[in-house]
Amino acid sequence: MKVGIVGASGYVGGELMRLLVRHPEIEITSVSSTRHSGEKVSRIHPDLYGLTDLKFEDITPLDMAGKVDLIFLALPHGTSIKYVPGLVETGVKIIDMSADFRLKNPELYKPWYGYEHGYPDLIKKFVYGMPELHREQIKNATYIATPGCIASSSIYSIAPFLSLELSSDIINVDAKVGSSGSGSGLDESKVFSERFDSIRAYKPVNHRHTPEIEQELEYASGKKVKIALSAHSVNMVRGILTTSSIYSEGDEITLWSLLRKFYGNEKFIRLIMDRKSNYKYPDPKTVIGSNFADIGFAIDKYVKRVVSFGAIDNLIKGAAGNAVQSMNIMNGFNEYEGLMMPSLFPV
Amino acid sequence: MKVGIVGASGYVGGELMRLLVRHPEIEITSVSSTRHSGEKVSRIHPDLYGLTDLKFEDITPLDMAGKVDLIFLALPHGTSIKYVPGLVETGVKIIDMSADFRLKNPELYKPWYGYEHGYPDLIKKFVYGMPELHREQIKNATYIATPGCIASSSIYSIAPFLSLELSSDIINVDAKVGSSGSGSGLDESKVFSERFDSIRAYKPVNHRHTPEIEQELEYASGKKVKIALSAHSVNMVRGILTTSSIYSEGDEITLWSLLRKFYGNEKFIRLIMDRKSNYKYPDPKTVIGSNFADIGFAIDKYVKRVVSFGAIDNLIKGAAGNAVQSMNIMNGFNEYEGLMMPSLFPV
Amino acid sequence: MKVGIVGASGYVGGELMRLLVRHPEIEITSVSSTRHSGEKVSRIHPDLYGLTDLKFEDITPLDMAGKVDLIFLALPHGTSIKYVPGLVETGVKIIDMSADFRLKNPELYKPWYGYEHGYPDLIKKFVYGMPELHREQIKNATYIATPGCIASSSIYSIAPFLSLELSSDIINVDAKVGSSGSGSGLDESKVFSERFDSIRAYKPVNHRHTPEIEQELEYASGKKVKIALSAHSVNMVRGILTTSSIYSEGDEITLWSLLRKFYGNEKFIRLIMDRKSNYKYPDPKTVIGSNFADIGFAIDKYVKRVVSFGAIDNLIKGAAGNAVQSMNIMNGFNEYEGLMMPSLFPV
Amino acid sequence: MKVGIVGASGYVGGELMRLLVRHPEIEITSVSSTRHSGEKVSRIHPDLYGLTDLKFEDITPLDMAGKVDLIFLALPHGTSIKYVPGLVETGVKIIDMSADFRLKNPELYKPWYGYEHGYPDLIKKFVYGMPELHREQIKNATYIATPGCIASSSIYSIAPFLSLELSSDIINVDAKVGSSGSGSGLDESKVFSERFDSIRAYKPVNHRHTPEIEQELEYASGKKVKIALSAHSVNMVRGILTTSSIYSEGDEITLWSLLRKFYGNEKFIRLIMDRKSNYKYPDPKTVIGSNFADIGFAIDKYVKRVVSFGAIDNLIKGAAGNAVQSMNIMNGFNEYEGLMMPSLFPV
Repeated sequence: MKVGIVGASGYVGGELMRLLVRHPEIEITSVSSTRHSGEKVSRIHPDLYGLTDLKFEDITPLDMAGKVDLIFLALPHGTSIKYVPGLVETGVKIIDMSADFRLKNPELYKPWYGYEHGYPDLIKKFVYGMPELHREQIKNATYIATPGCIASSSIYSIAPFLSLELSSDIINVDAKVGSSGSGSGLDESKVFSERFDSIRAYKPVNHRHTPEIEQELEYASGKKVKIALSAHSVNMVRGILTTSSIYSEGDEITLWSLLRKFYGNEKFIRLIMDRKSNYKYPDPKTVIGSNFADIGFAIDKYVKRVVSFGAIDNLIKGAAGNAVQSMNIMNGFNEYEGLMMPSLFPV
Repeated sequence: MKVGIVGASGYVGGELMRLLVRHPEIEITSVSSTRHSGEKVSRIHPDLYGLTDLKFEDITPLDMAGKVDLIFLALPHGTSIKYVPGLVETGVKIIDMSADFRLKNPELYKPWYGYEHGYPDLIKKFVYGMPELHREQIKNATYIATPGCIASSSIYSIAPFLSLELSSDIINVDAKVGSSGSGSGLDESKVFSERFDSIRAYKPVNHRHTPEIEQELEYASGKKVKIALSAHSVNMVRGILTTSSIYSEGDEITLWSLLRKFYGNEKFIRLIMDRKSNYKYPDPKTVIGSNFADIGFAIDKYVKRVVSFGAIDNLIKGAAGNAVQSMNIMNGFNEYEGLMMPSLFPV
Repeated sequence: MKVGIVGASGYVGGELMRLLVRHPEIEITSVSSTRHSGEKVSRIHPDLYGLTDLKFEDITPLDMAGKVDLIFLALPHGTSIKYVPGLVETGVKIIDMSADFRLKNPELYKPWYGYEHGYPDLIKKFVYGMPELHREQIKNATYIATPGCIASSSIYSIAPFLSLELSSDIINVDAKVGSSGSGSGLDESKVFSERFDSIRAYKPVNHRHTPEIEQELEYASGKKVKIALSAHSVNMVRGILTTSSIYSEGDEITLWSLLRKFYGNEKFIRLIMDRKSNYKYPDPKTVIGSNFADIGFAIDKYVKRVVSFGAIDNLIKGAAGNAVQSMNIMNGFNEYEGLMMPSLFPV
Repeated sequence: MKVGIVGASGYVGGELMRLLVRHPEIEITSVSSTRHSGEKVSRIHPDLYGLTDLKFEDITPLDMAGKVDLIFLALPHGTSIKYVPGLVETGVKIIDMSADFRLKNPELYKPWYGYEHGYPDLIKKFVYGMPELHREQIKNATYIATPGCIASSSIYSIAPFLSLELSSDIINVDAKVGSSGSGSGLDESKVFSERFDSIRAYKPVNHRHTPEIEQELEYASGKKVKIALSAHSVNMVRGILTTSSIYSEGDEITLWSLLRKFYGNEKFIRLIMDRKSNYKYPDPKTVIGSNFADIGFAIDKYVKRVVSFGAIDNLIKGAAGNAVQSMNIMNGFNEYEGLMMPSLFPV
């Protein structure tokens, strides 16, 4: 299958290529970047040197659609929406990595993203690309909206516990994110000397993944909860850890059972249970480079909460990995194709 | 004044020496370490090479007391208590860096520290060594119990806001701590290759600083709150950031006023208000190497909470710095002596 | 093909498993560790959780030989040699990751490794497992001695330039190595707080890879040179950069031609030539997680030297990757099988 | 004494302020920055928040000279020279942190810095501000040119050994430098995600500190040597390690004697001799935050070289620290004033 990537010079675009150059069913035929047009992909993504001779093109999404079967949009929020209405006319399959089609309620775009979403009918055609929750819909989808990175870690680690009786409808989520979550753009605060050894509360309130998390948790559990999310950027490049406080009670056996029941044989969800390991709880260190989401918990009897953890590679299971997994499902490929690699450990 | 340090080979003991070798009122006359007895201090604490010729002695606290005016106990929890009853007989001044005399309610030692505290009368003689809350008591104290590192950051950043009306008595605290907070002891999980790029939830529930934080917040505000603390070790050596969710409402002006009113002219508390800086919120990067506690907040209107931040150097304002500040106060020295250094930035 | 790994709990053993669990021709049937006998492999190597259910066995190499077609020895120097004489009796294929059979001259073991090598005849049966130099011999080999990590980077980056006229027979090599090069063993100097932000000259003289580098450079060029190697451990986990000073003259075109001629179509050698990239010279950052060796140079007209660079992942192209590549060649598999993955970038 | 700093928003300017705000003899009365004019110093240098209320002014060096007794020029190479001729007319004392007046031979500016130096007479008035080599000249100086950072580490660690008989006049210097050595300016290669875990050969040949090192080594030893310098930027913010190969022979006792004799009682030079420490050789980790230069060596009998090490904080002993030390000397203050602080360890 021929695929194209719009906005391929960013980290998400680069990660898509990292995964797809090895995918036996896929041929990447066009990758676009206005800024780096004409340059070799491997100049910007040096991991791909020796693996592809692709060059960035300055090509419109519409023109790209004429050359591919499926198009990935690795664009900022508010930009995908400019191209999608035209693209759907062409019949090309679309996997949008932005937030522009994640939220089912179009009214939420104004307060959370600052723009009026003028295409409520198009929203209905998009499936939220989280295979563990929406596999059947993805099978029949033509259009996918890939989940946000913090959203993924939060949803994976909270959803199974919502069948518990909650003493509060507010769930506190503290997210620690590597720098690649902030993109490859340039500003002074990102300079190495300013950023090394820093813990930066870059979005302590009003994080845009909030409504997306709430939407999917309601979908998964039938319960409306409110997410109190604070996001921090920490001293590393890849990886996310979310620590969530779910105010509820339950013993170890009950909680492990909930996790097992919720995830069954999901191959990319790992339950972190080994208390004799150096990694007793989910830790980005053990997932970076992989498509795994590691889930675990601790029980706080003192304040009667379950502290649940999710750890993912923000660029893989938090972005390009879920996109490829959805692509595999919607095209009838082996769901795990190109994704069943171990994390890079130690690194 | 002559001082001695028991347990001087650890990071807290080392930091005490870093501060005290420059202190014009102080002569360090004895430092003990069973393990490193006879070795030069600068072998273990290479920062002190060229600044002191001290050697570690294998000397009992009681024998040390005979040679000094004031003794610092840089010992693990449960060990200080073995020596304090004997030491108080000698008349030596004591600054205990462990938790053994921090909690006013002796009943709390069993559930939180695992031992019965047999000296309730001694507890009464100790002052909690946080100058901003207990300056007057410290002036007249002979015995000081220095606050814990996460406790310090939490108390500094939460206390001022407790005069707000709270919609929940539970305050969620997420702590991110450098590796030096876990001491210099040796175990496999601390090996660099295992620990680099890791975010380790080392104490996600039941952290021992919990009752200490609650005690002091009640002291400062008259309100009983419950602390839901989760502590993570992150990819750096020094520094703590605590992110706390206080469920309450208030506008920017009100909250800044609360901070200003609470801290007045406290020289070691800095309010982080500059939204045009690279460091909009408190960040360990801007305090390490200093005795400052940086405090700031963000307002979350969506879930009606104040997100407050505290950033300190865990070994200085979170341990040795507060100890020296208390020492200055209780001995009538200039309170800021030896402590008014800028952080090391950038590092 | 069935393979076993002796000493599988170390980082080299773990990396072998990372590569082999995905290898379509390979079944790992036995992995040994005295210390972790009975424990799941994924406790020690958390990257493998979900990818294998193997457990460490306490099994002798000889017993393992009865169960596999090929045995990897991931053992310390001086230990492999205890088992190899027995193993060769069994007919099992051997890939030894230690130095015990790398040096063709048995006399060199005493001065460089401290032991008399009692098996000069066995040495002759081993092929130095560097495919780019010894591919034909590897094809017919039964026994392989895998190159050392610093040796690999040095040989790859120096050998092509030795056809130049040298003004000195001494080549200065400065190596910067990630912490995983020092193994997973425990000692105080490895504790994170002691090792972070450090540059440690851990072997500034007398590095044991010296004779191995000299041997292979003579093999490749016919010239005897002396290597002045200084090895430093830097603030990262994976990766090696070697910077070598070859005292000779040559212009850019000549030097690029030498590299192209020497390496032809070698797929795992990449020439770093793009001066508009952020990575103008070889850099560990662009190879970690891959089997690539990145080679480049700069010309110093002032002192008339070529400064050549080699960058590899010490655990892959510097150890397990070359071992698997050799395994592929000697067994008639596709040489690139299981190895043609991009590096993990950015990380 | 009143001092001013031109170019105070960079890291060297910031470090000068870090040191001078605590200096009892100094009042900083003017700090300039075109770009940040009107902004508080603590916005850019957050370590100074709470310690100074200074704001950056957009003031010419000439105007600043009217307000201060001594002026620090923390400007790029090629910029100081535009202002110095005018400044010397005013009688103000000058400490120039750039290279514009370091080289005694004006002919060297064209090949190494790319500009013709039109003021050979002015050069003669400047003293190279390295107290250990030029203390007497500094005492009587009005104009100081502060040494470069890599130059400092190289000179300190090589000079004492040049009284040995050398078998080569080329000395190989490999420098590993933290990111702060590259300044606070903005470009894509400095973005955290691109720079973390990287070892970048940013100046492998033709480094501009070369002639400066050669000049001072000749001054110190009477011997002309040639420096083959390769500079790498490593995964940390502060600190330099230089590893130098001096081709010569000597036993341990001889070499230690040379060091002791050369440095006598120099308080800021520390000889690293303790082989039982975690830090057997000089390491940036043990000097950052201090004005110490740590010197040590290893003997390579195999290729007959002395491998000498220098470790300094590039912003302190490699820039602002030597500037302040020179200022102290030339003004008759205590030479150590404001500089005798321990490094920040561990960090």
